[in-house]
Amino acid sequence: MTATFLQTLRTIAGAAHVITDPADLAPALTDWRGRYRGEALALVRPGTTEEVAAIVTACRAAGVAVVPQGGNTGMCAAATPMAAPRPAILLRLDRMNRIRAISPLGDSIAVDAGCILANVQAAAAGVGRLFPLSLGAEGSCQIGGNLSTNAGGTAALRYGVMRDLALGLEVVLPDGAVLDLMTALRKDSAGYDLKHLFIGAEGTLGIITGAVLKLFPRPTARVVALAKLDSIEAVLALLSAARAAAGARLGAFEVLNREQIAVIAEHLPGVTIPFALDAAWYVLIELADTTGEGLEPAMESLLEQAMERGLVADALVAASEAQAAAFWKIRHSVSEASKAAGYVVSHDSAVPLHEQGRFVTEVEAAIRALRPDARIVMHGHIGDGNIHILAIIPPVADAQERFAQVDAINAAVDEVTARLRGTISAEHGIGYANIHRLARVTAPLELSLMRQFKALLDPDNLFNPGKLFAGKQ
Amino acid sequence: MTATFLQTLRTIAGAAHVITDPADLAPALTDWRGRYRGEALALVRPGTTEEVAAIVTACRAAGVAVVPQGGNTGMCAAATPMAAPRPAILLRLDRMNRIRAISPLGDSIAVDAGCILANVQAAAAGVGRLFPLSLGAEGSCQIGGNLSTNAGGTAALRYGVMRDLALGLEVVLPDGAVLDLMTALRKDSAGYDLKHLFIGAEGTLGIITGAVLKLFPRPTARVVALAKLDSIEAVLALLSAARAAAGARLGAFEVLNREQIAVIAEHLPGVTIPFALDAAWYVLIELADTTGEGLEPAMESLLEQAMERGLVADALVAASEAQAAAFWKIRHSVSEASKAAGYVVSHDSAVPLHEQGRFVTEVEAAIRALRPDARIVMHGHIGDGNIHILAIIPPVADAQERFAQVDAINAAVDEVTARLRGTISAEHGIGYANIHRLARVTAPLELSLMRQFKALLDPDNLFNPGKLFAGKQ
Repeated sequence: MTATFLQTLRTIAGAAHVITDPADLAPALTDWRGRYRGEALALVRPGTTEEVAAIVTACRAAGVAVVPQGGNTGMCAAATPMAAPRPAILLRLDRMNRIRAISPLGDSIAVDAGCILANVQAAAAGVGRLFPLSLGAEGSCQIGGNLSTNAGGTAALRYGVMRDLALGLEVVLPDGAVLDLMTALRKDSAGYDLKHLFIGAEGTLGIITGAVLKLFPRPTARVVALAKLDSIEAVLALLSAARAAAGARLGAFEVLNREQIAVIAEHLPGVTIPFALDAAWYVLIELADTTGEGLEPAMESLLEQAMERGLVADALVAASEAQAAAFWKIRHSVSEASKAAGYVVSHDSAVPLHEQGRFVTEVEAAIRALRPDARIVMHGHIGDGNIHILAIIPPVADAQERFAQVDAINAAVDEVTARLRGTISAEHGIGYANIHRLARVTAPLELSLMRQFKALLDPDNLFNPGKLFAGKQ
Repeated sequence: MTATFLQTLRTIAGAAHVITDPADLAPALTDWRGRYRGEALALVRPGTTEEVAAIVTACRAAGVAVVPQGGNTGMCAAATPMAAPRPAILLRLDRMNRIRAISPLGDSIAVDAGCILANVQAAAAGVGRLFPLSLGAEGSCQIGGNLSTNAGGTAALRYGVMRDLALGLEVVLPDGAVLDLMTALRKDSAGYDLKHLFIGAEGTLGIITGAVLKLFPRPTARVVALAKLDSIEAVLALLSAARAAAGARLGAFEVLNREQIAVIAEHLPGVTIPFALDAAWYVLIELADTTGEGLEPAMESLLEQAMERGLVADALVAASEAQAAAFWKIRHSVSEASKAAGYVVSHDSAVPLHEQGRFVTEVEAAIRALRPDARIVMHGHIGDGNIHILAIIPPVADAQERFAQVDAINAAVDEVTARLRGTISAEHGIGYANIHRLARVTAPLELSLMRQFKALLDPDNLFNPGKLFAGKQ
């Protein structure tokens, strides 16, 4: 039966694009962090939306689950085939990587979902526009994955998250039908907006095969500064002042705590830290604009006033583009440095901005009480209410013991998150890794509605089973 | 039976808030344009979300439809009770008009859905922030209605439509349950985003009782200009140049055709037109920023370069705030002037921006061919792809004859809209007036999914029946 099924897939996608060899399949069965390992009958690489629809129809007939996988760079194992005991295929759209259309006038780009993010950024730059989504994995992650996890990244403060950047979608539904919502319209009040249900759904409701995305005027100049501050309240006050003064010029406002910078200094000696580590918080501020005029004076005046108010202890404004890049290098080194320092228990919570101070303080205390041996490092998008808090603990060889330790730390963090009306996942998703945590921050009625939508669109639980929801569906 | 039902409503909301007197009820039974007249057992004005839930439960038990009505300023009779033969109540939330919370730091405001838009704008201004939604009816329309129609207005180019401005929602479902999605989070990737299904749904899936909305830094300076151009292509090229040069400073880019200005000049002699009517198109441009520095030079340089390229025939930059207001006065006079010129058959289409030139040309030709006697006036948000095209025809006394004439013009416009992959409703909604037009621009699969979501959430068709979808549900 499996042989017949695989033959059907080969007929649809071409024999070369149905990968069953265990050695070739292996990398796709494991998540990017190497924490989970799944099983799949094959990795299938369709070349067109019609082929995706035909593959879905074949899977439905055979009772085989469909697990979509983009660049396999996700943080929560949403793209790892954990469908057992049900058989599954992995569906990868990397052959569907065309820029379908680009309109500088309309500030929009229509793409296949298999396009790599960096290629979409480059296509936009080619016509003098900006596609603003930017994140660590941009060289290999794909638009379909970015949409399915509702990716955030460092530009979300200014441009919003992936959901905000999507104008239209093309989706293959669990019954094999192609839902064509590939509109480039900025405004449409004609009926329910269906596309938002598929964004952030991790492939559980449909396979995203194409998208129309927003483009923006391309900033031509930027000024980057690094500031030292003594408290999270001062960081938030500086953020508020920066927004009032700079408006939409405020391109980034990223924070790191002292321990995070210490970890970078210890493990990545090639990264220049231009400060003594004598303050609690370090903020990277970027102002960017379509004109360079007034940008540096604006940054200097912002920092001067903040120093006069006692918010900022010290600050450096990058004197050159090379120095600006060096400042950003610190921010981009967090993952590599933290990984080198031990086993990383990371968090992706967000809370309302006015609760951010309480959140950071209470989470640090909660982890400290539980694990006095942990190094607690923090970095991230404080302007979005989304600081990643990482507990770095000594490696634990036994997997079950390790999961227990991780769970205990997660529970302590989630308790604070839920109390402050936050989310456990601001930008990474739920996937497989976090299914048991979703109910901690999601009301029963909301969860029930999610399950009802899932049951309506995918009554046989064919699409990415075992993801997002806790328990059997 | 009706008496018992009304008594139940009085017990829930208080006798003073259940209005059944025909004279008091009459204004609420007719839409703002005075084109439709419905029937209702009562107008009910609950004071809390719990009362809304109790009223919904009582209506469900009695088999009475619930028609929500905000400020009753909608363009498509979405809030007019056209539920016959079923009995209906009108639900008005004007007593629910509290600002629940406001956070300048978090740039968010939580409000009751019955808040008048202008009051939310004022509350934001009170803490030095901007709530950007702005439209003609802002002095009387309500947030619940703005959300339910996904309102647009003149600031959408810069800040997006109402959907883009909503962070969280509170919704009473057809089964009487209260869905609390009142989050202030900027980023949340934990499961399906349910709120978007209720935004733009015209009350057919739930009654929106509260919302958390985004605030923005408040611009402190603006420069307004009026430019004459000879072709729609030149208008689009100027838009593109303005975006590249001004980035997020571009606050508005509104267009009027010559005939629209002529109608204003004829019927509103108090409105100053500072130009001879010798160009085909007139554009109002506003640049706004958190600082006034460089704003006027930016506008002047934009216009100079556009003149050198031959895009702009002539331009005036407002020399004072009074003159800026006078320029805007022209734009804000379109409805009053057009109404005075005859019977207005208006359209709210949007097409992708790169199709805007073809759209305007082909629609004008189509209306011209059908109705050589019509005055064709145009105005609106060209930056959003949304020019309102109005055919002003001589008044027709007979209602049936009038509807037939309107239908013929609509059909001609809709044919062009559908061919260019546009929408018939960019910002006004579908309501009752446009139900037979929705299928012209919406694929059968998309419509089918909308109906399935409606059936899932409101199996008894209790909420605003006869709206949005064509035919019986």
